[in-house]
Amino acid sequence: MSDLLDTVRGLAKKTDSKILMVVLDGVGGLPLTLNGETELASAKTPNLDALAQESQLGLVELVGAGITPGSGPGHLSLFGYDPLRYVVGRGALSAVGIGVKLNSGDVAVRGNFATLGAGRVIDDRRAGRPSDEKNAEIVTLLKGAIPEIDGVPVEIYTESEHRFVVVFRAQGEPLGANLSDVDPQVTGVPPMQAQAQDPASEKTAGLVNAFVARAEEALKGEEQVNGVLFRGYSDVPHFPSFEDAYQLGAACIASYPMYKGLASLVGMDVLEVEGHEDALDGKVKALTENWAKYDFFYFHVKKTDSTGEDGDFAEKVHKIEIFDELLPQLLALKPDVIAIVGDHSTPSKLLSHSWHPVPLLIRSEHGRKDHAARYTEEEAQKGSLGLRRGPDVMPLLMANALKLNKYGA
Amino acid sequence: MSDLLDTVRGLAKKTDSKILMVVLDGVGGLPLTLNGETELASAKTPNLDALAQESQLGLVELVGAGITPGSGPGHLSLFGYDPLRYVVGRGALSAVGIGVKLNSGDVAVRGNFATLGAGRVIDDRRAGRPSDEKNAEIVTLLKGAIPEIDGVPVEIYTESEHRFVVVFRAQGEPLGANLSDVDPQVTGVPPMQAQAQDPASEKTAGLVNAFVARAEEALKGEEQVNGVLFRGYSDVPHFPSFEDAYQLGAACIASYPMYKGLASLVGMDVLEVEGHEDALDGKVKALTENWAKYDFFYFHVKKTDSTGEDGDFAEKVHKIEIFDELLPQLLALKPDVIAIVGDHSTPSKLLSHSWHPVPLLIRSEHGRKDHAARYTEEEAQKGSLGLRRGPDVMPLLMANALKLNKYGA
Repeated sequence: MSDLLDTVRGLAKKTDSKILMVVLDGVGGLPLTLNGETELASAKTPNLDALAQESQLGLVELVGAGITPGSGPGHLSLFGYDPLRYVVGRGALSAVGIGVKLNSGDVAVRGNFATLGAGRVIDDRRAGRPSDEKNAEIVTLLKGAIPEIDGVPVEIYTESEHRFVVVFRAQGEPLGANLSDVDPQVTGVPPMQAQAQDPASEKTAGLVNAFVARAEEALKGEEQVNGVLFRGYSDVPHFPSFEDAYQLGAACIASYPMYKGLASLVGMDVLEVEGHEDALDGKVKALTENWAKYDFFYFHVKKTDSTGEDGDFAEKVHKIEIFDELLPQLLALKPDVIAIVGDHSTPSKLLSHSWHPVPLLIRSEHGRKDHAARYTEEEAQKGSLGLRRGPDVMPLLMANALKLNKYGA
Repeated sequence: MSDLLDTVRGLAKKTDSKILMVVLDGVGGLPLTLNGETELASAKTPNLDALAQESQLGLVELVGAGITPGSGPGHLSLFGYDPLRYVVGRGALSAVGIGVKLNSGDVAVRGNFATLGAGRVIDDRRAGRPSDEKNAEIVTLLKGAIPEIDGVPVEIYTESEHRFVVVFRAQGEPLGANLSDVDPQVTGVPPMQAQAQDPASEKTAGLVNAFVARAEEALKGEEQVNGVLFRGYSDVPHFPSFEDAYQLGAACIASYPMYKGLASLVGMDVLEVEGHEDALDGKVKALTENWAKYDFFYFHVKKTDSTGEDGDFAEKVHKIEIFDELLPQLLALKPDVIAIVGDHSTPSKLLSHSWHPVPLLIRSEHGRKDHAARYTEEEAQKGSLGLRRGPDVMPLLMANALKLNKYGA
């Protein structure tokens, strides 16, 4: 299978120009009432408005028509990796998200702590959503009980609440990741046995089933957290790195594990960000201090998504306005190309990610006249970039930065 | 790999309707200042305007988002051959461009005359850009010196200035074209040895290296033109012919070698055009005189590109206006379908081809209402054809000419 990334990869050249890609997580929205305004349209955004008037706009579908992207596919798409071709398992995503490096042959597994009743029947698939502290306590207990299985080193990590990650470290022979879930995704039944779906995964299935048994044994004294469920096994994804694909020295400026993990997966340097939660000031500081060192910056803003997930329209509007206030500090760095885009929509009306296209803004010296006057869903329809798929974004940024050679003579 | 061409090929039927595809080379542009007008928008084009008002418009990306097409891929795309799938090497392009027919198994190589100094170090990769006459004189000298190598007939042709083409004619066993360049693309080092990249190309590498040595020997008496560099080896591309793909008797009306070569490569008849350079009058004459004989005409206008490459905004505007004056003569032939399109953009601001989409205009009896009032980049955004990839153009023309059967029952 060949796609635009393969072509771009053969054309990319190193130059001095700098690209800043701002991802406003889940920024696309919906009106609460028929013909009403979305969160973006409701926000007062004088700086974004001014930028839009000298930019090219369009709309982007990250995966495809009608498809609601998860954060992983949404971001991979923005980074130019067609999410229908380049798939990262949830286990690998969780692992890299908490800073765990996977090696070729290893398998990472996404786990839930659960509450099991009589006859191992699942009472609660999330074990009453334990605190992160309780989670860490259980993880310490399990680490002591299951340091290895059949000579395969086992690593166990807290993710958050009921979520944890197990990494099986391959010794020589690579471990397969093609096996069935332990988590039945319903209560009232016992956990399932993991079954290998191919010969290479037979050893892994044995490891997983042994882990489940030994964990239940070790957790016998616990009231709520006395079982484990697994869903999502993954080996290490093999992607062309960002540097290899685009000849870009690339830096990630994000504060949440998932986004840092995604960026490191494609080979970006993940910069230190001071502060808690979205830490926008720390992000601007990291961007400014490292501006000379990289060709490409991925700058992530999280709260536009979280407020949408909370169904808080007014607060999402507010978070957009907060970004607008910060925008002049980004523009002051004079990026040759700046893009503002989302990794998916998260309308507060739906309290979840959605399939709606997200507005894309690109400003460079090489744009045509464009009739979009604001960075909103409605105005973006009038933009000159049209409605596109996510993997078009990086080639457009590379082209606008004059970092692509001509294709053919 | 399957694409639209494969489908269209199964649906095409022969009818009496006639299609005229006008390619204004590099016609897409950019404003010189933010939110300014492009070359097309600046031009006074009453005839194009009137035509646009009864046509459908849209925008076309010939290769893909952000990708700047060379003339080869740009034209192949317009002819319906996806340029990511159908690739023509530079050598084959040059050969067909000067009217040399390649047979299966032959290899065509693109050459530069160079100036070599002491120790064979390259002083000038273009030998001071000799005149075409000097080029021809050197080619005559080389023809005498190298009629064949190891029993393989060698043909040598002048292209222009420092450029020439060598064709190695396979005798029985086909010659491979997968070998490394002789041209290091820098000065201050000697030419490189061609290295075969696969077993089938080992004989070709020997021929190329022997040619380099014998040419240097033959050119010993020359001051400036005393070396040869090779870059771009190609065997014969295997495309479905235009006739086979579309059931069209097709004619090319162009005056520059590259475009005639591309057209002949896909099986069009290349018509004689009287006059020099762009020879627009000669082209109209050729079109008119052959109107009864073909179903499809590819009519090429070159100067819209050359002026963009020169960075001459005003002159590009002027060349567009010259085409506008000629347009009524084309319309007088009453084509059932006329398309006006570019093979890529060449903004005078960038002095080169660019990635920006080009406006597409289609007039037939079978269009819907369309709000594009001029053939410009800005108006084309309002058109009913939307933003498309180049390989969509031919199916649209075929459909509008009622030359495609229904797909499926």
